[in-house]
Amino acid sequence: MFPNNLLSVADFSRKQAEDLFDLADHFEKHPPMGLLDRDQIVGTLFYEASTRTRLSFEAAALKMGGGVISVPDANDSSAKKGETVADAVRVMSGYCDLIVVRHPIVGSAAEAARTSLVPIVNAGDGDREHPSQALLDLYTIRKERGEIEGAQVALVGDLRFGRTVHSLALALALWPGIKIYLVAPAILATPTAVLEALQAAGVEYRQTECLEEILPDIDVLYATRIQKERFKGEEEPLYETVKDFLRITGQTLKAMKKDALVMHPLPRVGEIALEVDDDPRAIYFRQAWNGVPLRQGIIATMLNRTS
Amino acid sequence: MFPNNLLSVADFSRKQAEDLFDLADHFEKHPPMGLLDRDQIVGTLFYEASTRTRLSFEAAALKMGGGVISVPDANDSSAKKGETVADAVRVMSGYCDLIVVRHPIVGSAAEAARTSLVPIVNAGDGDREHPSQALLDLYTIRKERGEIEGAQVALVGDLRFGRTVHSLALALALWPGIKIYLVAPAILATPTAVLEALQAAGVEYRQTECLEEILPDIDVLYATRIQKERFKGEEEPLYETVKDFLRITGQTLKAMKKDALVMHPLPRVGEIALEVDDDPRAIYFRQAWNGVPLRQGIIATMLNRTS
Amino acid sequence: MFPNNLLSVADFSRKQAEDLFDLADHFEKHPPMGLLDRDQIVGTLFYEASTRTRLSFEAAALKMGGGVISVPDANDSSAKKGETVADAVRVMSGYCDLIVVRHPIVGSAAEAARTSLVPIVNAGDGDREHPSQALLDLYTIRKERGEIEGAQVALVGDLRFGRTVHSLALALALWPGIKIYLVAPAILATPTAVLEALQAAGVEYRQTECLEEILPDIDVLYATRIQKERFKGEEEPLYETVKDFLRITGQTLKAMKKDALVMHPLPRVGEIALEVDDDPRAIYFRQAWNGVPLRQGIIATMLNRTS
Repeated sequence: MFPNNLLSVADFSRKQAEDLFDLADHFEKHPPMGLLDRDQIVGTLFYEASTRTRLSFEAAALKMGGGVISVPDANDSSAKKGETVADAVRVMSGYCDLIVVRHPIVGSAAEAARTSLVPIVNAGDGDREHPSQALLDLYTIRKERGEIEGAQVALVGDLRFGRTVHSLALALALWPGIKIYLVAPAILATPTAVLEALQAAGVEYRQTECLEEILPDIDVLYATRIQKERFKGEEEPLYETVKDFLRITGQTLKAMKKDALVMHPLPRVGEIALEVDDDPRAIYFRQAWNGVPLRQGIIATMLNRTS
Repeated sequence: MFPNNLLSVADFSRKQAEDLFDLADHFEKHPPMGLLDRDQIVGTLFYEASTRTRLSFEAAALKMGGGVISVPDANDSSAKKGETVADAVRVMSGYCDLIVVRHPIVGSAAEAARTSLVPIVNAGDGDREHPSQALLDLYTIRKERGEIEGAQVALVGDLRFGRTVHSLALALALWPGIKIYLVAPAILATPTAVLEALQAAGVEYRQTECLEEILPDIDVLYATRIQKERFKGEEEPLYETVKDFLRITGQTLKAMKKDALVMHPLPRVGEIALEVDDDPRAIYFRQAWNGVPLRQGIIATMLNRTS
Repeated sequence: MFPNNLLSVADFSRKQAEDLFDLADHFEKHPPMGLLDRDQIVGTLFYEASTRTRLSFEAAALKMGGGVISVPDANDSSAKKGETVADAVRVMSGYCDLIVVRHPIVGSAAEAARTSLVPIVNAGDGDREHPSQALLDLYTIRKERGEIEGAQVALVGDLRFGRTVHSLALALALWPGIKIYLVAPAILATPTAVLEALQAAGVEYRQTECLEEILPDIDVLYATRIQKERFKGEEEPLYETVKDFLRITGQTLKAMKKDALVMHPLPRVGEIALEVDDDPRAIYFRQAWNGVPLRQGIIATMLNRTS
């Protein structure tokens, strides 16, 4: 459980998340340089490449005064020799104070946490969880909208393979009054397990293939990338048919509330037209930039260095 | 324009270059540790691999007291998912204070600069520009020769694809009395656009395929690697025929002035024989080592931390 | 010779090794933060991927207050353009204060040392030497057993390609009373050159294919990975036949002394069953973790910063 590890959105309470957001707000106003000792090291171990998640954790650690060791492409090293993620993390945990791990197989982060000497952040395990991204998204909503409570949020695009939206949907369920619209083509619909978890959490949701009909109602439009690399084998040809479905354009914005938010975990490919970037409601770059203070909050909380 | 960005050799004046060289000289005598705050971070984003350019910028930043975040092979990460360099740089610009970017496509750095929150250094965009290398070369000439003015410089080897020599030729044109010899086999001759730019700048130049005839006259012999990776499609077989053309050996040195300089941006493959290394005129390693103070000068100037 | 370079186990004396171990012990009790100046930089240049060796050197340097520049996969950069390791190291030696280099070709580190401005650590050159690993292994034996002298050590597994065991066997020969059992299938037997070196050093050794018969006698069981990547050409099919030979299990432990040590340089694939991990004699993770203080000792000694 957070703050010992951050493996799943099920690892933190609403209270813990709000405290974390307060801390991130504080760090943005008062840069936390020196909060880590110089010999406190954050390790990043990525079996799938990432720019944003890895760099924002690394920048976060450096700007707190700590050090960084990194394996940006772990598949090229020990994994190729057949080492398990559990062994790799256990070794690395003797060299650093916290490990951020991304791995293509569901459950890898939990497996790593069992053998690690130090706290583990799951930065994505297969198509399941990416809790620090969910926290970043929620933090951004709170910062831009004032509060998360009562938000009507449309999750749009790839709801089948998108670990980001799975984590976000379940995390939103911690706040009252949330309504979630799940907008995806049938082939990319939300997995039953995620729907059941939303039901179990008592969160109101609705599935639809039609974005237009809900645009006037929503506070947040959260678009996601159709992940080409997840279409394998006989499903591969389907990528071309669905990739332009639900593209966000200037036209989309016209039908939305004046104070709505357009978010995206990035990288985007074609899901959001460039013309959208200049609209004040397009906050996906600010969302990415929030990664530094939010991840500083995570590091500080997990290493018990909050002040 | 420099010092806001460093995208092209057209971005700086002769005065700015000379001031930068003075600063690099100063940093070599008085190491600038502490000139950057610990939370000032230099980011390196390389879509083509590089050792020298990337490491010298990173060492420069660290030795000024700053931090470093790096994507040493950006093609393995977000680019593979289809993200544009403009989006990647825009995100990264929220995590650091200056970005050094190399990309195989001409104009990428300028595109990146349009969306970045922080200054951009173009560390090579396709076969066009590599301005920090040109500054390093000029700095080395000034340091070794006393002044750049009046130098007779032979650019030798691949003048077609070599971005280094394009940038250097145009930058040399800022000083008076320069004469440039463009020495290359016909298949690797200087592009017309570069020749026209030299003409427009009023610099005296001469194209030749014969190195021997100019050896007694030149002050600087600047050799370049024949870049195998630029020979594509039907031109690929030509690589073998041209690669040993214009090889620099002990014999070459015998025909040169006693105080001439032999330079090379490195890496070399077979263009310079190992026997040349021990000649005092062979300064290509010192040229590479100048990368740290020169790039400290660039970082300091762009971040307005010159003292 | 150490401490100028660390290229081979032949580079250090028993006295130098014991002093180094004392220093590592001291650093473990009194973390050496600040022993390096902030502008002292350790460079890691790896032509073969590594997690453990690279990260432990980098963590070691950071936790001493120094900086790190790294080429985690040098084959992707200048080497692909045809640059020699000697040139690459010579350039890099102008950017940092010590270089840790791994390269697949025997003799590369020595070649690098000839042109480098700064001390070189050989972190593996082909199937020959990996002296900092040998020192780490010896340090671990001393720390766990009290002394190295008189140890009966079984080197088990791939004794043909395993550079780790070659370096370790020769280094053990520096202590009196050592007995080495070389346990391997015929196809992976110790090279004659290594056997001759052991003979020349006057160390007692015995070759066997049968682990069981020696289990009751040994103080240290040093298992190694069968390196799939070394089986090339017509020998490739043999990998499958030998890979499970000499697997260490709970059953193996039952026949061993109560205070014996089970070691492995890691990564392991199937050579040691997971059930062994919980036995107090299984010290391979502690062995890996010792990498930080031991490598801090190496860095401090080579940079003459031992106090």
